[in-house]
Order: sequence, then C-alpha cells, then structure tokens
Amino acid sequence: MLDSAKEVWETAQLVLKVKEPLEEEYGYLHEALVLFTYLHLAASKPLTQALIDSGCTSLAYETVTDRNGGLPLLTPMSQVAGRLAVIEGAHHLMSTQGGCGVLLPGVPGAKPARVVVIGGGQVGASAVAMGTGLRAEVTVLDLEPQILQRFDDQYQGRVRTQISDPVTLHEELLEADLVIGAVLIPGAAAPKLVTEAMVKGMKPGAVFVDVAIDQGGCFENSTKTTHDDPTYKVHDTLFYCVANMPGAVANMSTRALTTATLRYVRDIASEGVDGAFERFAGLRDGLMTRGGKLLSDPVREALDL
Amino acid sequence: MLDSAKEVWETAQLVLKVKEPLEEEYGYLHEALVLFTYLHLAASKPLTQALIDSGCTSLAYETVTDRNGGLPLLTPMSQVAGRLAVIEGAHHLMSTQGGCGVLLPGVPGAKPARVVVIGGGQVGASAVAMGTGLRAEVTVLDLEPQILQRFDDQYQGRVRTQISDPVTLHEELLEADLVIGAVLIPGAAAPKLVTEAMVKGMKPGAVFVDVAIDQGGCFENSTKTTHDDPTYKVHDTLFYCVANMPGAVANMSTRALTTATLRYVRDIASEGVDGAFERFAGLRDGLMTRGGKLLSDPVREALDL
Amino acid sequence: MLDSAKEVWETAQLVLKVKEPLEEEYGYLHEALVLFTYLHLAASKPLTQALIDSGCTSLAYETVTDRNGGLPLLTPMSQVAGRLAVIEGAHHLMSTQGGCGVLLPGVPGAKPARVVVIGGGQVGASAVAMGTGLRAEVTVLDLEPQILQRFDDQYQGRVRTQISDPVTLHEELLEADLVIGAVLIPGAAAPKLVTEAMVKGMKPGAVFVDVAIDQGGCFENSTKTTHDDPTYKVHDTLFYCVANMPGAVANMSTRALTTATLRYVRDIASEGVDGAFERFAGLRDGLMTRGGKLLSDPVREALDL
Amino acid sequence: MLDSAKEVWETAQLVLKVKEPLEEEYGYLHEALVLFTYLHLAASKPLTQALIDSGCTSLAYETVTDRNGGLPLLTPMSQVAGRLAVIEGAHHLMSTQGGCGVLLPGVPGAKPARVVVIGGGQVGASAVAMGTGLRAEVTVLDLEPQILQRFDDQYQGRVRTQISDPVTLHEELLEADLVIGAVLIPGAAAPKLVTEAMVKGMKPGAVFVDVAIDQGGCFENSTKTTHDDPTYKVHDTLFYCVANMPGAVANMSTRALTTATLRYVRDIASEGVDGAFERFAGLRDGLMTRGGKLLSDPVREALDL
Amino acid sequence: MLDSAKEVWETAQLVLKVKEPLEEEYGYLHEALVLFTYLHLAASKPLTQALIDSGCTSLAYETVTDRNGGLPLLTPMSQVAGRLAVIEGAHHLMSTQGGCGVLLPGVPGAKPARVVVIGGGQVGASAVAMGTGLRAEVTVLDLEPQILQRFDDQYQGRVRTQISDPVTLHEELLEADLVIGAVLIPGAAAPKLVTEAMVKGMKPGAVFVDVAIDQGGCFENSTKTTHDDPTYKVHDTLFYCVANMPGAVANMSTRALTTATLRYVRDIASEGVDGAFERFAGLRDGLMTRGGKLLSDPVREALDL
Amino acid sequence: MLDSAKEVWETAQLVLKVKEPLEEEYGYLHEALVLFTYLHLAASKPLTQALIDSGCTSLAYETVTDRNGGLPLLTPMSQVAGRLAVIEGAHHLMSTQGGCGVLLPGVPGAKPARVVVIGGGQVGASAVAMGTGLRAEVTVLDLEPQILQRFDDQYQGRVRTQISDPVTLHEELLEADLVIGAVLIPGAAAPKLVTEAMVKGMKPGAVFVDVAIDQGGCFENSTKTTHDDPTYKVHDTLFYCVANMPGAVANMSTRALTTATLRYVRDIASEGVDGAFERFAGLRDGLMTRGGKLLSDPVREALDL
Repeated sequence: MLDSAKEVWETAQLVLKVKEPLEEEYGYLHEALVLFTYLHLAASKPLTQALIDSGCTSLAYETVTDRNGGLPLLTPMSQVAGRLAVIEGAHHLMSTQGGCGVLLPGVPGAKPARVVVIGGGQVGASAVAMGTGLRAEVTVLDLEPQILQRFDDQYQGRVRTQISDPVTLHEELLEADLVIGAVLIPGAAAPKLVTEAMVKGMKPGAVFVDVAIDQGGCFENSTKTTHDDPTYKVHDTLFYCVANMPGAVANMSTRALTTATLRYVRDIASEGVDGAFERFAGLRDGLMTRGGKLLSDPVREALDL
Repeated sequence: MLDSAKEVWETAQLVLKVKEPLEEEYGYLHEALVLFTYLHLAASKPLTQALIDSGCTSLAYETVTDRNGGLPLLTPMSQVAGRLAVIEGAHHLMSTQGGCGVLLPGVPGAKPARVVVIGGGQVGASAVAMGTGLRAEVTVLDLEPQILQRFDDQYQGRVRTQISDPVTLHEELLEADLVIGAVLIPGAAAPKLVTEAMVKGMKPGAVFVDVAIDQGGCFENSTKTTHDDPTYKVHDTLFYCVANMPGAVANMSTRALTTATLRYVRDIASEGVDGAFERFAGLRDGLMTRGGKLLSDPVREALDL
Repeated sequence: MLDSAKEVWETAQLVLKVKEPLEEEYGYLHEALVLFTYLHLAASKPLTQALIDSGCTSLAYETVTDRNGGLPLLTPMSQVAGRLAVIEGAHHLMSTQGGCGVLLPGVPGAKPARVVVIGGGQVGASAVAMGTGLRAEVTVLDLEPQILQRFDDQYQGRVRTQISDPVTLHEELLEADLVIGAVLIPGAAAPKLVTEAMVKGMKPGAVFVDVAIDQGGCFENSTKTTHDDPTYKVHDTLFYCVANMPGAVANMSTRALTTATLRYVRDIASEGVDGAFERFAGLRDGLMTRGGKLLSDPVREALDL
Repeated sequence: MLDSAKEVWETAQLVLKVKEPLEEEYGYLHEALVLFTYLHLAASKPLTQALIDSGCTSLAYETVTDRNGGLPLLTPMSQVAGRLAVIEGAHHLMSTQGGCGVLLPGVPGAKPARVVVIGGGQVGASAVAMGTGLRAEVTVLDLEPQILQRFDDQYQGRVRTQISDPVTLHEELLEADLVIGAVLIPGAAAPKLVTEAMVKGMKPGAVFVDVAIDQGGCFENSTKTTHDDPTYKVHDTLFYCVANMPGAVANMSTRALTTATLRYVRDIASEGVDGAFERFAGLRDGLMTRGGKLLSDPVREALDL
Repeated sequence: MLDSAKEVWETAQLVLKVKEPLEEEYGYLHEALVLFTYLHLAASKPLTQALIDSGCTSLAYETVTDRNGGLPLLTPMSQVAGRLAVIEGAHHLMSTQGGCGVLLPGVPGAKPARVVVIGGGQVGASAVAMGTGLRAEVTVLDLEPQILQRFDDQYQGRVRTQISDPVTLHEELLEADLVIGAVLIPGAAAPKLVTEAMVKGMKPGAVFVDVAIDQGGCFENSTKTTHDDPTYKVHDTLFYCVANMPGAVANMSTRALTTATLRYVRDIASEGVDGAFERFAGLRDGLMTRGGKLLSDPVREALDL
Repeated sequence: MLDSAKEVWETAQLVLKVKEPLEEEYGYLHEALVLFTYLHLAASKPLTQALIDSGCTSLAYETVTDRNGGLPLLTPMSQVAGRLAVIEGAHHLMSTQGGCGVLLPGVPGAKPARVVVIGGGQVGASAVAMGTGLRAEVTVLDLEPQILQRFDDQYQGRVRTQISDPVTLHEELLEADLVIGAVLIPGAAAPKLVTEAMVKGMKPGAVFVDVAIDQGGCFENSTKTTHDDPTYKVHDTLFYCVANMPGAVANMSTRALTTATLRYVRDIASEGVDGAFERFAGLRDGLMTRGGKLLSDPVREALDL
C-alpha cells in the first residue's frame, strides 16, 4: 500500500512506461503484473498471446466504462483532438497552406468563416467551443434533439443547431469554409456522412478535418495522413486527416489522460485489481486477460481464439 | 427658483402639456413663456408665425445637441423605436399576420431567422440588441468601419458586421427573414437603400420594418401606415411602416423622453434660459424664436421668411 | 427498405399527410398501414373505432417517451410555444393592443417590464430565454429547487428564481407586467395557479399569456381564443389564451417537429414497427391500435370500450 | 537621466516616501526637490507655507488632469474604493454585523439582495461590477442618460438603469438592501442625496456604504468612521462611512496607484518637470508651488494668501 | 387536510418551531407528533431516547435523499455557506483584518487575487461562482474529471480546472491568496487535504476559509471559531473556521431551507407520513424513530443501542 | 460622376490594380491620375521621383488619419495580423512544429497555456480576443491605465491587465507559453521590449510571435521570416516573425482593407480629390505628391530631396 501521493504518481508513471517496449519483447510481463494502458488487442494476435502466456492481468483503457455508460478514458483524447481540430483547420485555411485564404474569425466589416461541425459528442462539443471562441459562424449537426438543445442552452443562440440528415448536411456544406468530422461510434467504423459528390460542390479552398480518422474517417475521401504531411487535395478542397492528433501536444495530452486514469491507478495500486473493481464497476469492462485466460469475447471473436 | 424635485417634475409636466392645444389656438403663448418641446417648425408656417408674434422663447427638442454633436433628445425615441421594431417584426413573421410563418428565435434543431439591420446608429444598435437577444442570426451593415468594430467588440463575434455597399446589402437580403431599416440622417430625407428590385428577389413572407419612415423611409416602397393597419404587401413580402412607433408604448416613451429632457427643464426652471445656455451649450442649438424674432436659419429658408 | 435520405424524407411527408383527411373518411386506413402522428384518441370514439376496424398500426406522438421518461414529441411544440409567448406578450403590452403601453426591454433610464414565468419546464425555460434576451427583469417560479438551481447556474444571477407557493406567487404578480403561464402536467388538466383575486390586484394593463390553455389553462379566468381574436379583458388586465400557438409559425413548427420525429419515421420505414421498438423502447408507449385491437388502457377507460 | 527600469522604479519609491515625514518637519524640502504626491493644500496653511518657503517644485496628484479632463491619479483609488464598498457591504449585511441577515447573492429559490448604486462614475461602475458579479439585483442611478446607456450596453439588461431624481431614488431605496453612495464632485463637497427621511422608510437592517465620505459624504447622516469601528445605526439601518477605504488593501492600492503615477514619475525623473509638462499637458494642472511661489488660484483663495 | 397555501405555510412554521425547546424538555413530544428537522441523533443519546420514549415519528433533514442520491435538505445550506465563504474571505484579506491587504478583484493594472477552491460540489460550485463574479483568478480542484468538465463548459475557460492530487494542490496553493476548503463527504469526517507543511510555504497574509469545519474541517490546522472571533493565525496565514456559517444570514438561510423542505412538509401535513413516503421515496431515508422504535442502523451503532 | 454602386466598385478595383506594375515602369502615371494605395515613399527614391515627374496626385494609405488621430487604413491589417498571430502561435505550440507540445486551450483537468500580449492597441486587442476565445489564460500589458481599464470592462475580469514595465513584463514572461509582440509605434521602429536575457529564462518550447516585425520587431532577437519557413530557435524557444502576415489570408485581408478604403475611393471618384478632402479632412494627411510637387515633409527629409 502506498501512503504518499508522490509514490502513487511514480507508480502510475511506471505502469504507463511499461507499455512501449511491450510489443518488442514482452519480457517484463509476469503473473503478478497489472498492465493498464491502451491495448487494442483485436488488432494484434501476438500481443494478445503474450499477455495470455504471461498470466498477467491486463486492463484496456479503451473499454473501461463509467456509470453513464461513457468511455471515460477516451474522453480526454476526444477533447484534445476536437479542440486541436479547429486550430489546425484555421491554420490550413491560409492560402500558404492550400486553403482559401480566409481568416477564421473575420474582422469587423468582413464576415468570418462558417465552421460546420458534424456530431455533437465530446469531439464536436470541443470543436464548437473553439469555433465560437474564434468568432466563426458555427453550425453543429447531430441526430439527437436533446444534444442540440444542450448547445442551444449553453450558447444561447450563438450556434446554429441542425438535425443531421443528408439534405440539411448538404445545405450546410455549401456555406462552409471549414468542416470538422466528429462522428465517432465507439468500437465501430465511422459512418461516411460526407460523400465525394458533396465535396465537389463546396467552395474552393474549403478545409475538411476528419477527427474520426482513427476509426476510418467520416468523409468518403478520408485517408490517414501524418503531422509531417498532414493534408491533400480532394477536388478543390483540402483534407486534413492526421491520425493520432493528440500526439502533437503530448505534454498536454499526457496530463489530460493522467487526469482520467489516476483514480483507477491509485486504487489498483493501493487496493489491488479486485478492490478497484468494487469501487469502479466499469473498470471490469476493461479486463482483457487474467491468470492466463482471455476474458474479452469481442477480442476472442476478432482473433479467432 | 424651485427647491424640490417634485415641483421641478410638475413644472416639467406643465411645460410638456402646453404643446397639444398649441396648433389650434396659440392662446397660451406670451412673451414670458418658455416653450420647450418637439416643434418641427419647417413644416408649419402658421405655428412659426404664432411663435414669432407671441414673443415667446421657443426651443425645439429635435435640434438640441450634446458635446459630441449628437441629438440627445432624439436618442430615447430612437432607442424605443429600434427595440420595438424587432418585437413587431417578430410578431408579423407569424403567418396569421401575413409573414412567412417563421419563429424568429428558431428552436433547437430548426435554425432561427436572419435579421438584417441596415444602419448601426441608435436605432440599429437597439435592433441588434433585440435581435441577438431573441437568438436570431443578425447582420448589421454600416458605412463606418469604427461602428462595425464596436459591434464586433461588444458581441464578440455573435453578430455579422458588414460594410454597407449595394452588392453586400443585396447578398444579405437574399438570406433575410426580417429587415430593419435604421438609416436616419438628422434633418434630411432617409436614403432609399433597398430598391424594389431587391425586394422582388427576397424569400416569400419576409418582413420589412422601416424605422426611418418618419423621415420618408429607407426602402423604395415604404409608405406610412398606422398601428391600426400597420402592414401591406410588396411583391411577396410584408412592409411595416408605422409612423411614430413609440406612441404605442407611451408609458415607457414618456419616461424615456423625460429622462433626457429633465436636466434641461430643471435648469431652465431654476436658472432661466440664459443660465441654462451657459451650462448646456448645445441647448442653444434648439433656439427657434425669442423676443419676436425667428432665430433659425434653416427654418427661415424652408418657410421663405 | 429505403436507401436514400430523400426517400426517407418523402416517406415521412407521406405518412404525415395521411392525417388530415382521416377524420372525414378513414378510407386510407388498412392493415398494412402504420399511422404515426398526434392522435388524442381519448377525445374521439369514432376515430378510435375506425383505427380498430381498419386493423392498422397506429402510434400517437403525444405518448411516446424517451429514456428519461420525457415526452420527446411534445418538446419541440413546447419550445415553440414558450418562445412565441414572450414575443406575443411583448406585442400585446402596446397600448394599441390593450396593454399598459410598456416596452418590454425598457430603454436606458426607464426600467424594463418584469416578466413572471410560472413553471420551469420546457415552456418556461423557453420563455425565460426570450424574456432575458429582450432585457426584461425575469422571475421564474417552480416547485423543484433543482430546476431553480439550473436557471441560477445558466443565467448566473440574471434571473430571479423563486419557489412556487401562493404567497410568493402573489408577491411576484404585484410587480409583474407580463405573466407567462407555463405549467403543464402531461395528460392532466393544468392546475389553476393564478386566481381571479390575484388578477384583481395587478397593475392595469398587465398581460397574461396562458401557454397551458390546450390543457385547460393555468389561470382561473382563462378561456380559449384564436389568432384572429387573441385577447380579452379580465378586470384591468389583458388575457391572451390562443389555442395551438405554434400553428402561427407553421413553417418553423413543422421543421421543429420533424426534427424530433424523423428518427422514428426513418426506423419504422426501414426496419418496421417492431424493429423500431427494439431501438427506441419508448416508442412502444405510443402504440394505440394494432391488428384490430385497442392497446391503450387509458383510452379504453376514457372511451368506455 | 536614468537608463534602467529598476532605477526608475527606485526613484519613484524614493519620491513617494518623502511624503510621510513632511508634515512634521519639512526638513527634506529644498529648491532642487520635486515633490509629487497627494497634497490637499487647501486644508493646511503650514504645509503650503513650508512648500513656498523651501522653493521646491510641488505637484499635487489630486489635480492632475488627462486629455479628457479626467483626474487620472484619483481613478485607481476610486476603483479600489468602489469595489471594496460592495464586499464590505455584503459583509455587513450579516446579522452578526448588525445587518438584516441577507446573503447578497441569494441562493436558488431565495431571491438576492437589491443593491442601489447612486452615481455612475468610476466608483459607481466599480460597485456595479461587483454587485452584478455577486449576483445581486442592481440599480444604478445617474443624471447623464449617456452614462446609463453605457451600463445598458455593457450589462445587456442585467442592470436596472434609472435617471437620478429624488422621486425615483426614493422608490429604489424602498426596495434596497444595500445602498452605495458613489457621488463625487471633484474638489467640492458631495451633495446630500439621501435624506434622513428617506432612511427612515427603509427595510430594517439595510446597509449604507458612503464612498463619498472623504468629501463629506452623500447621505445626510454620514459621519466618518474607521476600519476599527466602521459602522453605526441610523434608525433601523446600518451606516458604513470608513474614511480612506483603500488603506485596508494597501498592498493592492499601492500597486494600483503606482500604475497611474509611474509614467509621470519616469518622465519627471528623466526629462525634468518641464520636459514632463511637454509630454503630459495635464500634469501642469497639478503644479502647486515652484521657486517660492504659490501657483494655484483655488489654494490661494482657500487659504487667503 | 389543509386547503390553502397560507395554512400550509403556517403549519410548516409550527413544525419548524418545535425544534428549539426540544433538547431541554421534550415535553411537546407525543405519539401523534411528526417531528421533521435537523436531528443529528448520533451525537445525542438523551435526545434519541426521548424520541423513542415519546413514540413520535421523527424524520431527520440531514439524511433525506432525492432521486439522484443527493441530500436535498443539505443543499441550500451548502449553497449559502459556499457563497458566504468568498465574501468573508474577501473581507478578511484586508490588512485591518489580518490578511495580506489584497483586494480580491484587483483593479485594472493590478492583478486580482487567486482563489483556490478545493472540491467541486455544491459548496465549491457556489464559491467558484462568487470568486469569478468578483473577478478573481479562480482554480477549482476535484477528483472527478466529469465535474471539472462541467466547470469548463459553464465558465468557458474562465476558471482553471485541476484534478486534485497532492502535487497539483501544492502548486496551486503557492499562487493562492484565498483558499476555500469545500470538501464534504456526507456523514464522514472531511479528509485533511491541506497539511501544515503546505501552509508554511504560502504567501504571508493568505486567507483560508474552511467550509467543511462542521465535519471537522479539511485543513490540518482547522479549529472551530465563531462569528464573534472568526479567525486565528497559522504561521503567516489567517484561518477562518466559523461553524454554522449560514447562521449569520439567517433571514436568507431560513428562506432557502424552507424552499427545500416545504414540499415535504406540505405533503406530510396533507397526506400523512406514509402518503408522503409514497410520493417522495427518499423521505423514508430520513426516518429515525416511529412508534417507540429506533429505525436508523447507523444511529443504533453510533449510540450502542 | 458615378451613379451606381457597381461602377464605384469597379473604379475602386481599377485604382487599386494600378499599383503593381508601378515600380517597374511608372508608364501608367500621368497628371490626371489619382493614385491611392500603400506607398511608403521614404523607402524608395525612384518611385518618389517618378510620382513627382508624372505630375499625378498620389495619396498614401499609411498616413491617412481619422478624426481621432488614428490611422484607419492600417487598422484592418492590424486586426487581421493580431487575430492570425494567436492561431499561428497555437499551431506552433505543437511539438511537431518545435513548440512545447501544449494545447493552447487545455482541457478540463489540464490547465491551458498562458498567453502574454504586449501592447493593447488594435493588434493587441485582436490577440486578446482570440486568446480568450481559445480559453487560454491571457495577460495584456500596456503603458496606458485607460487602455487596461477598457480590457477589464470588456472582459469582466477574464483577462489579467498589467501596466507594462520591465519588472512586471519579466514576471509575466516566466509564466508564458505564448508571447504576442503587439507594440507598434506608427512611423517609428518598434521598441525592443523583450531582451535576449528575458528569453533565456523562459519555459522550453515557449513560442514568440512578433507582429511588429514589419517595423523591426519588438523582441531583441526578432528577424524577418516567411510563411514558407516561419520560425527559428532562440535558446529553447521558438520565434515566429513572418513579415506581412495578412498576405496568407489575402481573401479576407482584401475585403477588410476595401472595407476601410471604399468610402474614400467612392468620394474621390465622384467628387474629386478636393471634394474628398472637404468631407474627410484626414485624407489630406495622405497627400504625397500633386502637380509635380512633393508635399510630404517627412519624405523630403528621409530622401534628402
């Protein structure tokens, strides 16, 4: 049991650091170890097998749930990505980056850009916050009237809220200078809401940022790019589809992630995994392997084990 | 000299009440009387003559100036009219009134109306305040970049600011559900900024409110109407051109006007007209007649005296 | 199964259009038809019988529930009515309409009207938003401290929140220029919170808008009126009790309603009623008749079937 | 000439420190010295004589003007006092301090206090900012409609603006829990706007804070008090009339004052008094004595020199 | 059964008044009486025994729950205390009270105080509202990321949100001028989050307000004080640990409390205790004694009965 | 004289287009031509001579003044640059760009960056607007207390205002992640406020954006860069000193500039230069050459003509 915050913190760092060398060697793994990090086992049979063989207890960040059925260890990354999306979008609107040469906020006497945010979840809400903060005209689309009402309440008419159907989306795109794709369905491929046909009709130099790219993207023409070469042309528009956007603000992302994981780490460190399960029922949804057994049905199916 | 506020107040009322019977008889006028009210002498030779003949001192509200060259006794009426314009516009957007059946503020999931305010002075600023307050999407047009900057500072991007030229105005009208004409040039006919051709291209059921109607209106098709029969059709749109809009909220208008006139009335009552001139230099700009002489050049010219 | 959004939309329109001729003929009804609209069967035995006889599946908007027990297909109409209530109230405060001649927002130096909103649900929240937007002084009364706290959080002291008991209500009414009755108990007659005695003590020319009129009204003296002749005098005050207020902004109301119904319509169209029940459990609460049977207990009781 | 900021700063401190021992000895004064501080010579003949005899150049903070005719070296003290006035008023509303036991901000379901601020200058604006920040209901009264309009613009209807006449003031006082007297006429005794008769009719336990107390106070019953014993009863109300309020937050007041004086000190230090006069014309209005002569007419009159 | 609101109100007052003489005599208690007030039986065996012996039904405010598991009859007192904490903190920052002489809001050119609020529940949220309202720089710390997100949403970046761990807390304290302890764990002693070592490193004259003092306080050095002698020195800082803070604004606290209790009182009065239990399930959690039996397990354990 | 807005517009475009080929040939210049654009004659003797020889009337944007002594044709470019500075600063804070990997807005639980804006004019105000809009913690420094007060009024405590002296600036830099240099003295080299010594002590990866670079820059280590290669390292920090920042958003910059110039162009086109001088006195300050004479003293001195 740890009795000072500093120790807890150091333990947390230790556990987090284990991850990197993992895929190469797995030499650190043993039965008494608790591994708590992003795992994405469905994508790696060798890693899964190594975890099983080692007998360690492994918990995947990405499937831990909270009391409301949310995914609390994905939330901070969504917030980082959604906020960064508007900053990067504003940067790429510069003609020197291939955009239409519009200043997102406009200036008095010259109207600002219109930002269209598709999806009103954590990513979308973060993008709306930045878009309005930068004085753009902002539309947010979602399928849920209650989510739209929350935007209307919070922004008191400052944001245009639209129900998301293809006709409305298309109309909004015709006015857009910057489009943020923020539709993420946990554990599934993102739906392709913006078709190539829609892109063809856009203003020349409009910029698309696909925050859903890690799940395949929500624009038909999205393909993963990197921070080194972030954009490419689609007809007359510019697509920005950088995978792992939060990696570019690692300083902040690490702090944001730790903010969310610390409580679990602290409990696991002081009370053990089972003690932590008692306090945080949703932590159990993260359990992947224990005592040499694979305990996740979806992973078993995906890997045919 | 008056020593209590109540007396001052009553005096103010008295002076104000003199006005109404004036045009019929002029019997109350005499050399010792100070008449301080709206006069608009250029429009009435008999009244002007009566004032001259009586020898009274007459001061016209509408030409008194303040230190910044403004017209402080027109300001409260402009504020009332500009605020009322949006309320009346919102009311007449109802299909039962002949409008397009749009709810100005929209609701979550159904976008609000766009209000286009032409002119960013006292009337326009009042209309913008109400339009944003009702959660509409608002554009304000003006010729002065500094005025637009003030809107941008105050509303922090909530209001679209556009320099007023015919091309831009036309573009904005195409999106508009409600148009507020707020262009007033003191002492001159308002310029006809919205042409019939522009009106033809508007959305059916759009509503125009011409607050400049008392100076001839700033839309080509404006004609004075009354609170009893306030609107008429122009192509597929509805025009609201009620003269003397503040008359319908007389309770408030009187208080607002007295707010502005009281200081002058109080000074005239306690110190005499000359004493008041010393304290408020701009009051002198209101001087029309004194000791049997007409002292206003514009009135002399207008009436050919 | 429909594969394009446009088709879904057209289907939705089709289903909606079925309603009107319904009460006259019922000729369109047959076993394979799904009827999804406002039905209010408890008020019409012939309609209920026709639905049973036809064997069609009928679902009533007004009893569909969401996950939180709310009534999602009533919400948009409540929002429209609550927002319109303040616009109409402000309009009728004009002395030319019979009101006290007060401008709701006031102007600098002349204080604004006080708006008292009774009930803090969807209608009340919408009225509060418009009242503060128009710069009135606003009080909201409700029985639930948690609801009042939400207003206090959102408006940060801009709105006076009061627990609703008769003594406090009476005190607030004495200050009021505009009263919005926003107390709706789903499926029950609204309670008569404002008595005639209270009305007698009000400021002359105060305006009452009873948004609860479709459920009998929440003021003792409320009687249904129409958009053509919307108001009548009660002592020295003006009552506005227009039934079906959203009808006057049909353009917006339709879009707002479709916003809420579209998801259900789309699912029914592509997956059938049972498929839709699986996805939206609360849709089942809307089921009235199916295969020749009446499935709603309250309707059976009300109609004695 | 000084070439580093640090030296300038130290010089400033030095000049400021000269003040204290002044009234006792005057021994530090000599012809080459520039004395720049609050002087208030009209209240002290011996000090004035000593300054004349020494031949030093003395400049009084309190009469320096800026380009708009304002008093820039009084402004920071007015801001401190106006902000502190509301904090102290809120504190003294506690029944343990003799107030009526009301919590200034209220809580959801229990309405907040009403704060009445008399005067809309620097002190009044500071008090309004704090009153609204603490979620009280706030009224501000002033004689100038333009000043009221500025409040209406800035607070967008959050603050009640009233023209200041005795009738209106009296009405507002009847509702008030906390009254801030913020009427300061530079170089003159404050007018006694709140009479004892008005105080008599107030709510028991209401609190009055007279920020104008250093100029005699703007309530009829005001008498100077100290931070040690700040309040006394007047009928059923509590009066707080602490002289030199900013003294209790000396840390902040010093920084705020230096903020305003530094630019003059720096210029005097590097360019001499005449150089500084060239850059800051209004500094000349602060000149009291130079080369053995008294240069201020008002002081000469006041002291009969 | 009561049929008028006034009677209900009077009944409520009556029930509330019963409390005071209770601990002395218990003579009023009898089997037909329902006692509904703060009881805190675990701290008083004689009172508990008297309630049992009398056979009365007793319900404790402090353990009544609402649908979300909250404690609705503690909420208003938390709101009062949290809001008052900042007012009192600002007052005690004055050097005349022993503080560092900083004005909480600062003034233009002199930066404001930093307020650190530990805990983001009802008390903390109330303190944050007042701290930002007074224009301080505010940090709020909490263990729950979701709670921090709510602050970020509501204040849109105006408030610094930090996850509460000892390292971060320590860093924030080094910047702090005012610290509000707002960590309350219902029914348990507050954790001692601020250690003496942390206090040693603070700015001289910093002020600590421990709102958790009624549950033992959340600073290591907290000891109960009174409104008469509210503060004491700890190293170079000032501690304010007044027990029962709301007592000083009894006028407001009573109204706030009644706001929350009235609904229960009204139901008990008209429907009896069992009727009220049916409507408000959480009221049952308040049941302490009935028909001569002690029904609370924690009290039984605490008192060894 | 032009009678349609479209013609005016086209004329304006024509006049503007004259500029580019100018420096090569000057062939277009002749006595009847009015040249109205940015000229910067002090930097080019050949251009000046060509203008004189041609006999044309030339007016320089950069020296036109408005009624308040401002430079209205520089203002829109300052607004564009100041807004873009924060977007570009936020982009370069990414570790992939060489910054410290901090996300400007932070996320809940991880505190945002601190932005220090040096100078509170048009550039600085624009930067403050964007910095707060992106939810950063923002400090603005200026020499003028009145300018700081305007920020305090507008942002209501959301922005830290500091008087600019080297000690305070240094303290603020120690906390800064992003520094915006916004100190522009019209017609003079910018003062070097940030020394290399200050830069040495900064956080590693902090970003400096020098908007004053076109006038030499206000950081000691500033050297012009381009949009292609915008940054370079100074100790552990990143400097961004792109000359002509608005060029990258040419679409917006052109509209913003035209917003400001149109009124003059229109008047010159319809009334001639002398007519325009009558209406806009400050336009005369732009007059460089006319009828073969050089009319600007500063240019004559600078070029030794």
